[in-house]
Amino acid sequence: MDESNAEFVEVTVPELPLNPDGLRFIPLGGIGEIGRNMFAYEYGGEIVVIDCGLMFPEQEMLGIDLVIPDISYLLHNAAHVQGIVITHGHEDHVGALPWVLNELPVPVYGSKLSLGLIRNKLSEHTYLPAVELKEVNSESVLHLGPFTLTFFTVTHSIPDALGIIIDCPAGRVVHTGDFKLDQTPLMGQRTEVHKLVQAAASGVLALMSDVTNVERPGWVPSERLVAASFDELFAGAQEGRVIVACFASNIARIQEVLNVSARYGRRVCVIGRSMRGNLEVARALGFVHLPDPDILIEPDQVKTLPVNAVTVLTTGSQGEPLSALRLMSAGEHKYIKLSPGDLVVISATPIPGNEDLVYRTINQLFRQGAEVVSHGHELVHVSGHGNEEELKMMLTLTAPKYLVPMHGEYRHLVHYRKMAASIGYPMDKVFLLHPGDVLEFTSDGAAVIGQVPAGRVMIDGLGVGDIGSVVLRDRKHLSQDGILIAVAGIDSQSGEIISGPDIITRGFVYAEKSEELIEDAKEVVRKTVRELTVTSSTDWESVKTTVRTALNRFVNERTRRRPIVIPVIIEL
Amino acid sequence: MDESNAEFVEVTVPELPLNPDGLRFIPLGGIGEIGRNMFAYEYGGEIVVIDCGLMFPEQEMLGIDLVIPDISYLLHNAAHVQGIVITHGHEDHVGALPWVLNELPVPVYGSKLSLGLIRNKLSEHTYLPAVELKEVNSESVLHLGPFTLTFFTVTHSIPDALGIIIDCPAGRVVHTGDFKLDQTPLMGQRTEVHKLVQAAASGVLALMSDVTNVERPGWVPSERLVAASFDELFAGAQEGRVIVACFASNIARIQEVLNVSARYGRRVCVIGRSMRGNLEVARALGFVHLPDPDILIEPDQVKTLPVNAVTVLTTGSQGEPLSALRLMSAGEHKYIKLSPGDLVVISATPIPGNEDLVYRTINQLFRQGAEVVSHGHELVHVSGHGNEEELKMMLTLTAPKYLVPMHGEYRHLVHYRKMAASIGYPMDKVFLLHPGDVLEFTSDGAAVIGQVPAGRVMIDGLGVGDIGSVVLRDRKHLSQDGILIAVAGIDSQSGEIISGPDIITRGFVYAEKSEELIEDAKEVVRKTVRELTVTSSTDWESVKTTVRTALNRFVNERTRRRPIVIPVIIEL
Repeated sequence: MDESNAEFVEVTVPELPLNPDGLRFIPLGGIGEIGRNMFAYEYGGEIVVIDCGLMFPEQEMLGIDLVIPDISYLLHNAAHVQGIVITHGHEDHVGALPWVLNELPVPVYGSKLSLGLIRNKLSEHTYLPAVELKEVNSESVLHLGPFTLTFFTVTHSIPDALGIIIDCPAGRVVHTGDFKLDQTPLMGQRTEVHKLVQAAASGVLALMSDVTNVERPGWVPSERLVAASFDELFAGAQEGRVIVACFASNIARIQEVLNVSARYGRRVCVIGRSMRGNLEVARALGFVHLPDPDILIEPDQVKTLPVNAVTVLTTGSQGEPLSALRLMSAGEHKYIKLSPGDLVVISATPIPGNEDLVYRTINQLFRQGAEVVSHGHELVHVSGHGNEEELKMMLTLTAPKYLVPMHGEYRHLVHYRKMAASIGYPMDKVFLLHPGDVLEFTSDGAAVIGQVPAGRVMIDGLGVGDIGSVVLRDRKHLSQDGILIAVAGIDSQSGEIISGPDIITRGFVYAEKSEELIEDAKEVVRKTVRELTVTSSTDWESVKTTVRTALNRFVNERTRRRPIVIPVIIEL
Repeated sequence: MDESNAEFVEVTVPELPLNPDGLRFIPLGGIGEIGRNMFAYEYGGEIVVIDCGLMFPEQEMLGIDLVIPDISYLLHNAAHVQGIVITHGHEDHVGALPWVLNELPVPVYGSKLSLGLIRNKLSEHTYLPAVELKEVNSESVLHLGPFTLTFFTVTHSIPDALGIIIDCPAGRVVHTGDFKLDQTPLMGQRTEVHKLVQAAASGVLALMSDVTNVERPGWVPSERLVAASFDELFAGAQEGRVIVACFASNIARIQEVLNVSARYGRRVCVIGRSMRGNLEVARALGFVHLPDPDILIEPDQVKTLPVNAVTVLTTGSQGEPLSALRLMSAGEHKYIKLSPGDLVVISATPIPGNEDLVYRTINQLFRQGAEVVSHGHELVHVSGHGNEEELKMMLTLTAPKYLVPMHGEYRHLVHYRKMAASIGYPMDKVFLLHPGDVLEFTSDGAAVIGQVPAGRVMIDGLGVGDIGSVVLRDRKHLSQDGILIAVAGIDSQSGEIISGPDIITRGFVYAEKSEELIEDAKEVVRKTVRELTVTSSTDWESVKTTVRTALNRFVNERTRRRPIVIPVIIEL
């Protein structure tokens, strides 16, 4: 957040003297925050980048669409960036690609599904230069400059996810990507622990580990248990439709819903542009299997089928205001009208800060007469990130010398360090980094040797990075008390107001109910101008300032509100 | 929420024909929502009101300070309102009194501590008419018109809390207020279950029950266990200060912190205006006992004492942006600078929607080097509201004919009805009400017979109820994309622009970096005006509309943002 306090300070990329034997790890995002994952590895001046994600704006980033990493450092060293290697296809790992590739058109490496999703995403950004997308799998060996990358499959909430083993002359790093150690994942892909043990045999210099769920004890329950819950819920829901809301990217859950629907004779209507897009890509590439070739139906077919023959699979599990689920909860969805007997399953956990939106949606769904099942009541969701014991197991498997927790807020990093200490890793072997930190590993040890720019680049409409603290401050101010514009044309000879004054407000008071206030505000303008002695040498800026000050005082006394006051004084 | 969609529709209070034998229960708030508790009981045309609370604004109520109930119905029947009876001194039960008493100056009845807190609150609103505050206790018998009120103590997170038994010729109602059934509350006040059993002996027509925690199984752990956790934490914190954040109104927790601090040789600095005010009232009335007369210290004394001889008790447990804890977490508090070794205990659960703020505060506290303990890790907080089994016990004790869940969102009401069904109450005996519903009990049964106005009255600065949906919509719009004002003076003879055009923006783009955009926008104004044929009969409103449309299109194409566009065209 601090980064946005500077209003477009020109970013200078510091020169860090090259250490020919040092391996550098530079998070450009994704550490000390969740989202915007992007990590640079540098050896001998050559750079490999892992992931290229976006982050959703924080509450106070009013009107901002997305946040991406600052890639000044990579642009500064563009000739040496060998490529971007993707661990998996989630937005927080691939979402910044359209903007980044536009400035840094390097090859992108990823698994079949990751590239499928990326291709789909890039096709929406037609202005992009041609991009090289190169497929890898868990058996690939990738030589990029001084780096050799090998891969291991990991279990996560999306199939075809990879962890990466990065070798260079300075040593070997295990970069887990997002992972858990579910032994019975629905879609069959288990984390290849044997490769980790093999990697450890010749020594792991550092483990860069996903730590999202370090605060949760034990192991994440298996996806199989979620499947069992779904089976039970579907078995009991004979009186109406079943509506399942989950993340659009949760391909495993989508497959689960297709399976259980087929089992109970329901056809499935998928609603939500992103979910339909993901499903299409995953089907085309063979990652989702339709249990019945005719199982999918279109929204307008829903009402042609008996209620107990329909499942609706939709986005909106976070209570997002414009999502299909929210529209259904308000009775405003074009195709899906809820009625008593319908069962809504919210198959996701609220992201912190979204609880209120989710609960409001649940309240509204109940008001529509539906039954609602969500987290906390039934096991209808499990996380894609390993819990505490899984993170410990990863440490045990890889036996690294140094530890770098990633994919977590600062408190997660702190708790990871404590957890590592509890199984024997001294605190000074665990590095708690901030975005932009340059962590260098040499034969002498490891240390943060400097910082590169890693601010949050905000995207608003077509603008990339053109919104800073001044604009956000104004938006905040406008959102609280609105704006009052006073317009007057003044005769520069006589100093008299010959046009106006007029008062225009937005978001301040309801004008029709505030005529007296508006009239009094005009009188304040008249009186203020009258008291000024306007001459040919009048400084019109100071007239504006005087009017603004008088109106500010008047408005605050009368309303205890502080709108932005803009005097428009025209010299005639 | 829906209520605010109508922009100041004049409220009409429906005439409901008097039923001489009917008892009416009319929630003006506090059902289907949490906060703004206010309930009217009406018999033979006479009215008693229970509680008079406020609600904090929802996220989309931009710039709103507080929300209070609409009391049109009470004002319409003002001569028949016998008084307002307060269950306990929390803001969601007393916070609307300053505004309500201003329009409806009726006597207020409450316990000693409730009245103490109310007196303190009213003293900040000096414009108020003199108000009659009449003390009651758990042994009082209060005759108000046709009603006889008796009381029972309840355990809650504030001492001196009361439940109410309301008798009238139509029958007996038990109104629980906020309660739990902790058998070992820290401050000694247990719920007087024997009175409930006695009340049940002669038959309870209806139970109006707090249902906040109906979704939580079992019983709330005792405050004694929280005390034990605190003891352990203080015992282990020998290297620094202990900072405890809790709700300003949680008198029991404040007492607990004083006790444990005394035990471990720490003096206590209380920070936060509301907490200091509450402590002062509670001490003066004998509800808080200082374990050592010198235990309290002022903020400027903190740095004069060894770190392990200081406890800081503060507000900010919800991560509120301007709270003392938030300032400490940012290293910006005037008196309290955190350092490694300090322990911060967040002794509250985040209110849904506040999680993000709370986690951010925790992240920042860790960055300051402090250790942080919060909900989920240790038992440092328990709710003041009973869990599922306690709600069942209340039903068992009072054996009512009808049930009305209150103090809950709609989903809580639904879950309460399910819970009641599980112990034998048919669904049709449980009424799920909305604010404004008139529930009438007669010898024939009970039914909702109509609605009275019960919208959310928003307070913004000095304005009460003068903000409606138009103003909020504008604030939302301004917060997303800002505003663009185009100013031009046009010669009404020639149709030429002779002053300007000028473009003023706020919250739209950073003007200094957008000179080209602004110049192009001016050109759009020039071109648009040039293309209009201005004559003496020109409709200047249509000129404005044309300019606005042209600018809207230009701005959206160039930026994909949609600021509010205001053309200021002056005819010269």
